[in-house]
Amino acid sequence: MSVKDCVFCKIVAGQIPVTKVFEDSIILAFLDIGPVSDGHTLLVPKQHFEKLHDCQPDLLSQVGSRLGKIAGAVVAAMDCDGYNVLCNNGRAAGQVVEHLHFHIIPRNLGDGVFDRWPAYKYKEGLIETIAAKIRKKL
Amino acid sequence: MSVKDCVFCKIVAGQIPVTKVFEDSIILAFLDIGPVSDGHTLLVPKQHFEKLHDCQPDLLSQVGSRLGKIAGAVVAAMDCDGYNVLCNNGRAAGQVVEHLHFHIIPRNLGDGVFDRWPAYKYKEGLIETIAAKIRKKL
Repeated sequence: MSVKDCVFCKIVAGQIPVTKVFEDSIILAFLDIGPVSDGHTLLVPKQHFEKLHDCQPDLLSQVGSRLGKIAGAVVAAMDCDGYNVLCNNGRAAGQVVEHLHFHIIPRNLGDGVFDRWPAYKYKEGLIETIAAKIRKKL
Repeated sequence: MSVKDCVFCKIVAGQIPVTKVFEDSIILAFLDIGPVSDGHTLLVPKQHFEKLHDCQPDLLSQVGSRLGKIAGAVVAAMDCDGYNVLCNNGRAAGQVVEHLHFHIIPRNLGDGVFDRWPAYKYKEGLIETIAAKIRKKL
């Protein structure tokens, strides 16, 4: 299903040109034109879903099986020290295009990209309360 | 395969206690004890692989098919505005435990978590050169 006014649906339909690295019947992978590092690649399922949890398990399975292959090629080509795979869901999480996509972001030691990890500790008992709430929704 | 001295292999084997939210034969999902937001969940395949591209497509497929289900439960339980799914590969990318894992990070508008996105533009011609290098590795 293609969604009117969705930039990624237009890219999948060939209406907006991109620099492709891989394409099959399920996904399209292309270079982000506003990269955070050289080789920053986007992997999008061709079918339109806004968020990861909107997507059927079967499609996520097909996307997952392709992620490693694309990530491996990006790493080999860029000869980088590591990479992030990042999927932002919702504006609050930094999702700009509302069509599910995975960023593959090459990283090198000391590159200063995403260097903030604002971790904290739970107050006593809170972790169990939260886990119980999540388990209830499964 | 379990790897000696791997914290996540020990967790999978039940040797280190965690606050589980979901478990089946393929994956274990539990709350991160050093969260960046309440409900921050880790999803790990039970089998040991260091990085995403080390992992066979079949296993990534099985992991992928479970990601949406866990993310959906985290979102429903935390009643958050969005979430990031993040997989850090290699120390340069912020991977601390060298056993493949996906962070599911609940997000709310204006929470200030991961608010830096240091994007730039490619110099003319570079995007095509890089895409050609990646395509050659596929």
